[in-house]
Amino acid sequence: MSVGVAVLGSTGSIGCSTLQVLGRQRERFRVAALTAYSNAELLERQAAEWKPVYVGIVNGGKRDEGRGKGQGVQCLVEAATHPDVEIVVNAIVGAAGLEATLAALKAGKRVALANKETLVMAGELVTRTAREAGGEIVPIDSEHSAVLQCITGRRSGELARLILTASGGPFRGWSPERVAGATVDEALRHPTWKMGKKITVDSATLVNKALEVIEAHFLFGLPYGSVEVVVHPQSVVHAFVEFIDGSVLAQVGFPTMELPILYALTHPARVPDAGTRRFDPAAVGTLTFEPVYSDLYPAYGLGRAAAAAGGTAATAFNAANEVAVELFLNGKIRFGRIAETIARVLDGHHASDAGTLEAVLAADAEARRLAREAACR
Amino acid sequence: MSVGVAVLGSTGSIGCSTLQVLGRQRERFRVAALTAYSNAELLERQAAEWKPVYVGIVNGGKRDEGRGKGQGVQCLVEAATHPDVEIVVNAIVGAAGLEATLAALKAGKRVALANKETLVMAGELVTRTAREAGGEIVPIDSEHSAVLQCITGRRSGELARLILTASGGPFRGWSPERVAGATVDEALRHPTWKMGKKITVDSATLVNKALEVIEAHFLFGLPYGSVEVVVHPQSVVHAFVEFIDGSVLAQVGFPTMELPILYALTHPARVPDAGTRRFDPAAVGTLTFEPVYSDLYPAYGLGRAAAAAGGTAATAFNAANEVAVELFLNGKIRFGRIAETIARVLDGHHASDAGTLEAVLAADAEARRLAREAACR
Repeated sequence: MSVGVAVLGSTGSIGCSTLQVLGRQRERFRVAALTAYSNAELLERQAAEWKPVYVGIVNGGKRDEGRGKGQGVQCLVEAATHPDVEIVVNAIVGAAGLEATLAALKAGKRVALANKETLVMAGELVTRTAREAGGEIVPIDSEHSAVLQCITGRRSGELARLILTASGGPFRGWSPERVAGATVDEALRHPTWKMGKKITVDSATLVNKALEVIEAHFLFGLPYGSVEVVVHPQSVVHAFVEFIDGSVLAQVGFPTMELPILYALTHPARVPDAGTRRFDPAAVGTLTFEPVYSDLYPAYGLGRAAAAAGGTAATAFNAANEVAVELFLNGKIRFGRIAETIARVLDGHHASDAGTLEAVLAADAEARRLAREAACR
Repeated sequence: MSVGVAVLGSTGSIGCSTLQVLGRQRERFRVAALTAYSNAELLERQAAEWKPVYVGIVNGGKRDEGRGKGQGVQCLVEAATHPDVEIVVNAIVGAAGLEATLAALKAGKRVALANKETLVMAGELVTRTAREAGGEIVPIDSEHSAVLQCITGRRSGELARLILTASGGPFRGWSPERVAGATVDEALRHPTWKMGKKITVDSATLVNKALEVIEAHFLFGLPYGSVEVVVHPQSVVHAFVEFIDGSVLAQVGFPTMELPILYALTHPARVPDAGTRRFDPAAVGTLTFEPVYSDLYPAYGLGRAAAAAGGTAATAFNAANEVAVELFLNGKIRFGRIAETIARVLDGHHASDAGTLEAVLAADAEARRLAREAACR
């Protein structure tokens, strides 16, 4: 019997890569549900190929409703909790993914999580929900997949320290002044990874790495002081994991999301797959590592500070960043204004306990309101 | 109750490092037996500190005999099979370590193996003995420890390919002509590892890496075509391990033997240890990888060919190399003659089945005789 998979966000970058991977693993997995935000045409084609029992679109007014077809934001929860689904690949961009993650965990399913915002805005709530309901969170982010791969099969309590790698984005080596005025095109020119727009801008600000530090804290139960970041422009080493005896493992490879997606589906096992480029260190030649130059990435420091503050501060950080990035991508604010907006929101935010969905959603909404004000002032 | 450890070769480089490690782990381990080749003075000091129940010296005529004291080569087997011993650290240089390894395995003990010649000259016999008697071989070699650390806790059958790293030795970048006439001092100037003389010369010829390929084949059950080597001058990545899904793990760290020694004692668990320098990729800065330039390392190719030939060919390769390296270190032959000697021995050797100790010892003796003839002709 194959395992039923729901792909939330199937028309995005991670969604499409997931279907690529599943296309090579048809004897093990089947696509049980697909949802997209608004790309109805691609969704139709995917549905025609995979024949899922459930198809949903969040924002696609002209789509026929009927049995196994959903519309509006509730389609995410419907797909995530569908009885034919065992694994939910949550590849939704931004905060919209949270409710689907919680619903899937409550239904005891595995959530293969590319939507890191879920853990950033509500890490405590999400991990507690998984624990209580028997659901499981497996990361798709390449850095966190790297960590999981290094610790799988090891005894708990042996993990001591993580060092996540960051490419440094397109502005590595620029002056902070030049970065502040960077254009959208410049911010979207990522040196090593081909990804969606939002995460590409997050890589340019290094906000993405701050989000990943928070994600790692919640996934692996380490204090923030034990989650470090190093700049590694080649993106070949995805993370270093230090154990209590001082030994360090790393997961390495040419940049591709297909490997972490596959691993999130098969964990703790591995299955044969010949879909990705074979690693060859001599072809890589040179790998370099350097500290994070904090002047170049002010938003990264804000993210770490919000994380350390605890409670809803990370929620507010994430919300402020989402608003600011969207304004930047729409040409409304300059690049440097992203970090400035986040700083103002965090200044104005009163962090509170983030243990309930209501508290998280309230903090998120409040931070978004503050961010829109702050960005355009 | 602490675990009793025998250290065979306690006055050598690995032996001394083992006692360093054990000195930090006194609540977990005790030194139950010590043996040395001929350094009676250091052995006495070690025995005075650790108070083992058994002390032996292979070549130390004036030593007192008595209860718990052994002399001559049989002391290795006595220490390795002593009832107070649970783990035997075999840090003997060269072929002399084989019988102690076999005896320990037959007694159902764990052998923490730094003596790679054991597996090279008699891999089939040693692994079969371990399997049949319930003994266990855990590698101390940093590359093989790296592999073991990457696969521990993973399901069997998931391992697909190994890439062992080689520093390239002191002659990387030299012309083959200049290497052929290298002096003993030049050959002993290893760029990254401080080790015994024999293994340092083996690193200069890359014979050490050929021995490690054979060792890996027997330890991890992979065909030779799946055990690759890459030159990595910084010696920070110790090995890459590719799994069936294409994902690659690596074990990394500043060069030290203390970590692999500790892991060989505690495997499959890890224990807290703060004895080694904390890894910092930014302090490393740059890691490079390049193919093995075979013209520079003719003996490496001979070793791989002997391995592929099977049977006693690897035994003969190892024996020829031991003889030639000793002659080189004693100033009797030039550096280039090491590979020439090995080539002549392999040409004259009739490979046969290596399944019994008698066959292995006969092949070893015959190859040594051939090597002495060939080297000085």
